[in-house]
Amino acid sequence: MSDTKKIAIVLAGCGVYDGAEIHEATMSMLAVVKAGASYQLFAPDIMQHHVINHLTGDEMPEQRNVLVEAARIARGNIKPLSSFRAPEFDALLFPGGFGVAKNLSDFAFKGANCQVKHEVEQAVLAMYQLQKPIGALCIAPAIMVKILEGATVTIGSEASTIDQIEKAGGDHHITSQTEVVVDQTYKLVTSPCYMLNANILEIAQGADNVVKHLMALM
Amino acid sequence: MSDTKKIAIVLAGCGVYDGAEIHEATMSMLAVVKAGASYQLFAPDIMQHHVINHLTGDEMPEQRNVLVEAARIARGNIKPLSSFRAPEFDALLFPGGFGVAKNLSDFAFKGANCQVKHEVEQAVLAMYQLQKPIGALCIAPAIMVKILEGATVTIGSEASTIDQIEKAGGDHHITSQTEVVVDQTYKLVTSPCYMLNANILEIAQGADNVVKHLMALM
Repeated sequence: MSDTKKIAIVLAGCGVYDGAEIHEATMSMLAVVKAGASYQLFAPDIMQHHVINHLTGDEMPEQRNVLVEAARIARGNIKPLSSFRAPEFDALLFPGGFGVAKNLSDFAFKGANCQVKHEVEQAVLAMYQLQKPIGALCIAPAIMVKILEGATVTIGSEASTIDQIEKAGGDHHITSQTEVVVDQTYKLVTSPCYMLNANILEIAQGADNVVKHLMALM
Repeated sequence: MSDTKKIAIVLAGCGVYDGAEIHEATMSMLAVVKAGASYQLFAPDIMQHHVINHLTGDEMPEQRNVLVEAARIARGNIKPLSSFRAPEFDALLFPGGFGVAKNLSDFAFKGANCQVKHEVEQAVLAMYQLQKPIGALCIAPAIMVKILEGATVTIGSEASTIDQIEKAGGDHHITSQTEVVVDQTYKLVTSPCYMLNANILEIAQGADNVVKHLMALM
């Protein structure tokens, strides 16, 4: 089984409004297994920016750790992102969710002027330097254009978000729910997922398409 | 679209060790949409039995609400189980996770002598009285045999769990990862999912099979 491709998936917590989008994360894992590859989950061992009550949308007076909460999606099988080593993997994949814009970066608050967490940036750059493909769903392309200068991505159709992507130097293309945009230079594959109005089947199809393109770029 | 079948899915929190198993919950939602039906999520508005750190397995000194945490899987679109009305749905589906045995009942602590939360029991009985099908994944069949006397189910292959099912009056059959057991009298469809050693693709296939059988029993 030594030729089984290995894909690292980076989670930003557990829940669309303050962490990883759960459907996108789960469908990414499913897509990897359907494609005949295997996955290892990672998350940064840092505190969440905040905790959102997903029923009301209100902030809760709590503190939660990104790695500990992401472990819920992982059924405990997850590693700190600081232990990620690019040579051990064939691709790197980021599901979306506000956690990408609140925990992995501060894009939710600073838009094009955001900063990406150092270990996230290091993981992406290490893969790029080894010419290995990178996938980003939903809002995750926002941090890719901060790390990979002038990258071509899709992030849905919301004008204000596209504006921030372009201000950050990204080349934005609008696609439909399940389509992907491929930047051949960076081997970067993006798909809008829940950045467009989508149902859970379209999320599964979008994740399948991203993983298929990652496999083709290996 | 008035002939679109509607399936109510009941979540027990968010996370395998203290709530709903996230993959089983997500794959149930996907299976419903793939089958051409629609879903509405529900969860009881009660406190979790406890909160487990999914990285370490240790109990955490926190309190969380089942409905609020389940809303993470639901992206906010979820209703309190107390508002469930059987005439409005064509089937009722319970994904697994320890939350079923800790929050929806106390099966995790009392086995065959467990008590099932009143509103869970009422929802199941209301569907049975209307001769509508009920699905239960993973550990969820454990509470079905407490509600539906002598029901035929599968719950995996763990001897001690099977023993408790049989002590509770259930008729247990062992199946493989993606297979289902159908009790025609109760229109009850069960599949072992993560009660057996399974990968995420097998969870998706198990959920698909359960939903297909529910649709056939409508």
